[in-house]
Amino acid sequence: MTQIEYARKGKITPLMKRVAKKEKVDPEYIRNGIARGTIVIPANKNHRLTNPCAIGKGLKTKVNANIGSSLEHISLKEEIKKLAAAVQAKTDTIMDLSTGGDTGKIRREILKKSPVPVGTVPIYEAVIKAIKQRKAIVNMLEEDIFSTIETQAKEGVDFMTIHAGVTLETVGRIKNEGRLIDIVSRGGAFLTAWMVYNKKENPLYQEFDRVLDIAHNYDITLSLGDGMRPGSIADSTDRAQIQELIILGELARRAHDKGVQVIIEGPGHIPINEIESNVLLEKKLCHNAPFFVLGPLVTDIAPGYDHITAAIGGAIAASFGADFICYVTPSEHLRLPSVEDVKVGTIASRIAGHAADIAKGIKGALDWDMELTRARKSRDWKKQIKLAIDSERPRRLREKSKLKLSSDICTMCGEYCSIKVVKEFFENTVKQ
Amino acid sequence: MTQIEYARKGKITPLMKRVAKKEKVDPEYIRNGIARGTIVIPANKNHRLTNPCAIGKGLKTKVNANIGSSLEHISLKEEIKKLAAAVQAKTDTIMDLSTGGDTGKIRREILKKSPVPVGTVPIYEAVIKAIKQRKAIVNMLEEDIFSTIETQAKEGVDFMTIHAGVTLETVGRIKNEGRLIDIVSRGGAFLTAWMVYNKKENPLYQEFDRVLDIAHNYDITLSLGDGMRPGSIADSTDRAQIQELIILGELARRAHDKGVQVIIEGPGHIPINEIESNVLLEKKLCHNAPFFVLGPLVTDIAPGYDHITAAIGGAIAASFGADFICYVTPSEHLRLPSVEDVKVGTIASRIAGHAADIAKGIKGALDWDMELTRARKSRDWKKQIKLAIDSERPRRLREKSKLKLSSDICTMCGEYCSIKVVKEFFENTVKQ
Repeated sequence: MTQIEYARKGKITPLMKRVAKKEKVDPEYIRNGIARGTIVIPANKNHRLTNPCAIGKGLKTKVNANIGSSLEHISLKEEIKKLAAAVQAKTDTIMDLSTGGDTGKIRREILKKSPVPVGTVPIYEAVIKAIKQRKAIVNMLEEDIFSTIETQAKEGVDFMTIHAGVTLETVGRIKNEGRLIDIVSRGGAFLTAWMVYNKKENPLYQEFDRVLDIAHNYDITLSLGDGMRPGSIADSTDRAQIQELIILGELARRAHDKGVQVIIEGPGHIPINEIESNVLLEKKLCHNAPFFVLGPLVTDIAPGYDHITAAIGGAIAASFGADFICYVTPSEHLRLPSVEDVKVGTIASRIAGHAADIAKGIKGALDWDMELTRARKSRDWKKQIKLAIDSERPRRLREKSKLKLSSDICTMCGEYCSIKVVKEFFENTVKQ
Repeated sequence: MTQIEYARKGKITPLMKRVAKKEKVDPEYIRNGIARGTIVIPANKNHRLTNPCAIGKGLKTKVNANIGSSLEHISLKEEIKKLAAAVQAKTDTIMDLSTGGDTGKIRREILKKSPVPVGTVPIYEAVIKAIKQRKAIVNMLEEDIFSTIETQAKEGVDFMTIHAGVTLETVGRIKNEGRLIDIVSRGGAFLTAWMVYNKKENPLYQEFDRVLDIAHNYDITLSLGDGMRPGSIADSTDRAQIQELIILGELARRAHDKGVQVIIEGPGHIPINEIESNVLLEKKLCHNAPFFVLGPLVTDIAPGYDHITAAIGGAIAASFGADFICYVTPSEHLRLPSVEDVKVGTIASRIAGHAADIAKGIKGALDWDMELTRARKSRDWKKQIKLAIDSERPRRLREKSKLKLSSDICTMCGEYCSIKVVKEFFENTVKQ
């Protein structure tokens, strides 16, 4: 039985209890959310997770970090370092998007070493296989796709991006859309190329039940991919994007009916003023399934700083109800991220998620801010740095300044510290 | 005559023409905005600006960078470098907040070298003078304040933060508020200390007409400071803050009536869900005077990353109508910012401002994103980097990767580049 099936029968599983404790919510709240499809717990039956999590309505916003090799940059050692950096920066999940070298070996190592749920995009490996064995993407057999899904499922992958919404219908919509940049999702591009060349429907859509059967066997959470997500602010919220979302909503209902947990992937590139509508549309069209946003980036003009652009979009999206933020690193659009990029990207997304949690009124979210503020008021920099979302960077910045960590002032204001002045002349007179 | 007085008489000045050209708006739009008080041009009659700007309704969101020495870190050379870094990163204005060393000399050098408007907080120098000559902040004479304002006005300061809203009434409100952290504005703290100790009203409020006379003589824009801005998310939008805003609204009207341009300073620390209301309140209570926000920071837990926290808040505030964003650097709450911090802080705020300009529908804002997207579609990294908000960082990231700048792929996807795949199999078949 899957988590959904237990939940429907009113049974609270040990896994539900574990994540409820972590979230400080009633286990019944988790059970109810899973039964309704507003909450998921990505956890493959074959994967032992030391740090599982629940994603969805009423819970803390979760963060995902993408790692993995590429054709141009292959190092198992480096990917394991990235995993460690993301976990240390407290990512909630990891996705292995490897496309270079022995992708199976990299994935199995990540699955072995990751304490948090691991996601993949099986179509990548299916395409690599097709190119190796059959010379071109378009020669990929349907079997290449399903055997890859099956293999990765057996190995313990907790959630999988499945681009089942890239149908002949959505591809037709994009043809007529007139986008600045047609398709920027790799999975979307591979499948579109295959469909157009072979004049065939997307097997992931056509045989979606087969996907569901595999997912059901291992209790894999499906992350329905947005192959038509816009790649520019100028293309956002267009007919192709919303057409795909409509189809994803139908597929989400089918998955849930079959006892398969499902989340919906979202853009991408969205201007600030369209983010609220995008969240609303996902919630309405997809039965309140958890929304997994990639960024979103709120402008296209900042390569090198896209972790900031994405933090803006992620914070806004999550404050309106997005549940899960996929990080973006400073290297987005430029190169495969480095270990340092992975850390910075994870922190930036966690800032966005936490800021949104305060706005959403998640219970206990503000406590952290209050505790840090108290350390700030007592001018205790050691404690401020200890409580900070990342301690390494503020410690380094402070230590590079002339003042000792233990000093009760900083080099910004020195003895003109407003908190010190107020303590001396305001609190000590009026307030006593 | 001041800009407001010319505007009221229907006269478009050369300065109005210059900024209108830069904004690509009709000079009449600028004149009308200045006459109504929804637009300001910070430009002291004694300061020759090579790059002036207008701030306010319907115009591009502007960014301010704070530089200046502190008691603990004094270097004229470094401050000049910070000025250069901020200007290179295209800040719209500079504020010199020096409190260490020969503050007059530093200010005069910055005034001489800055192509953009320069702002100051005269109360800082008045307090320094009082401590030097009279041993304590609380011994400051009213004359110390006004003579400092007069001196800085003569030297050519374009806009000045004046904490005239820190009155006995607002101080009373803060006493009864029960904040986690009472006062975090240095100007607010100095004046509160002085008022409480001397049992006297704030001279900047009591003799606001004297401030207006000086500002009028030099056509200085007053930036009415928020001495009561909250220093924690937990304290935001409270009675003390809004009490001060009410008083600032009254003072803004008085300033405008006297022909003095005025903007209103705002928080500080605000959770995402309160930002819209904060912008609305400022606009309603202060006759739509331009709103100058410091950040705002949307959480307190990220020292070392407060440029990101502030970019989130700044983008949201500006998208709801804030006109002017004061940058926050990664060193905020930790130390005086470095030259590199100044650059990063300026870029982060400019990203926020531009993202907001797209959301606000500022004419032409999206063109930049579209141009960069076209370079992205043609897989021209040289051009993408050239068009980027900052070229140095993306160039460095790309150059550190294995691929040449001129390659038509990046190390993220390599030959699996979605854009390349689509071009080969989708565009070249279906779309032709």
